[in-house]
Amino acid sequence: MSASREQAQDLARGGSLVPSWVKDTARSVLAPIVRMALRLHITPNTVTVIGFFIVIVAAVVIGFGGLLAGALILTAGSLLDAVDGALARATGGGTAFGSFLDSTLDRAAEAILYMGVAAFYLGGSSPTWPVIAALVALAGSFMVSYARARAEGIGLTAAIGLAPRPERIVLIVAGLILAGLGIGAALVAVLWIIGALTVATTAQRIWYVWRLTSTQG
Amino acid sequence: MSASREQAQDLARGGSLVPSWVKDTARSVLAPIVRMALRLHITPNTVTVIGFFIVIVAAVVIGFGGLLAGALILTAGSLLDAVDGALARATGGGTAFGSFLDSTLDRAAEAILYMGVAAFYLGGSSPTWPVIAALVALAGSFMVSYARARAEGIGLTAAIGLAPRPERIVLIVAGLILAGLGIGAALVAVLWIIGALTVATTAQRIWYVWRLTSTQG
Repeated sequence: MSASREQAQDLARGGSLVPSWVKDTARSVLAPIVRMALRLHITPNTVTVIGFFIVIVAAVVIGFGGLLAGALILTAGSLLDAVDGALARATGGGTAFGSFLDSTLDRAAEAILYMGVAAFYLGGSSPTWPVIAALVALAGSFMVSYARARAEGIGLTAAIGLAPRPERIVLIVAGLILAGLGIGAALVAVLWIIGALTVATTAQRIWYVWRLTSTQG
Repeated sequence: MSASREQAQDLARGGSLVPSWVKDTARSVLAPIVRMALRLHITPNTVTVIGFFIVIVAAVVIGFGGLLAGALILTAGSLLDAVDGALARATGGGTAFGSFLDSTLDRAAEAILYMGVAAFYLGGSSPTWPVIAALVALAGSFMVSYARARAEGIGLTAAIGLAPRPERIVLIVAGLILAGLGIGAALVAVLWIIGALTVATTAQRIWYVWRLTSTQG
């Protein structure tokens, strides 16, 4: 997703690949954090930056082989990433810079996360295909967000498609946990699934923008 | 850069890291291609897609170790990427979809190129640091473009910064040629330089958008 401010709103909606009980749990975990941040007068942008650094820590831990610990830290960082949007709404709406910072650091965090996964495989014995899978997942995730941002730049909304960011994070956390428990193939499979879904979504968005612009004139 | 339609205009300007004789040569090579495409009624979007596939071929050749051949094919693909913009102007201006398609496929091509470079190192004996350098260069290049596209989404222009795409391509072609001639360290050095320049440019663009939005409100 381009902006996790919208992601937090998605938590309230539904009709997604993530089961609603996951969203309900996430909401109930988030509510007290949002209230505490409000009391401490922490700004949404501060929460965005803290969430970014937590994901960096997760990536480093994963790179050094701590898959289960990395999955846990990544989950914490990703939940925090939904707090900034809730906090922005609670304090009277986000700013243009807040939305820009949030989505830009989301991309950087995702890139650093896949680098951690690639570094983990580079430390192993046969890194080639897992690393290429991580590269495809990284590039595909970026393409999904970039196609949407560029569509917005020409005044269109292209928020369609499979595998928005919350779904991608749930997939990668599941893959990290399974690999941490000894089912190493699960993480590689997740990387290929994310790669395939994001490449398909990018193609879908290009096609969608083509249709929208060709009916306009 | 976000749109090579603008890149082609950059060829006519100046004040860049690329020496003017390189631009003069590029212009004189491009002019007859543009005239031929006009006569054959080839659309700018067709040229964009052909250029994209040529870069894919270059990436595959590089991945299998053909660094010099890859550099040559990449140069041809990148020159063609400047033709679409010139062609669009010659046929009465580009379309919104053309600009969207061009910049989206530019990103995909750049990602596939770095994947080719990573695959080349994965086939070697000590891939870890070169592959991480390729990942940083890939992610950094994406971040530069994404930050600009998101800034445009909120109505700002953030086209500032070091290492726009033509410069990145010239750097990587130089690295490929030197590595192909036996100076392997040159390509790794180029990857780290691109990584450092693009990360710095992303930080610069975030700072720039912050300054612009904070003076507005």
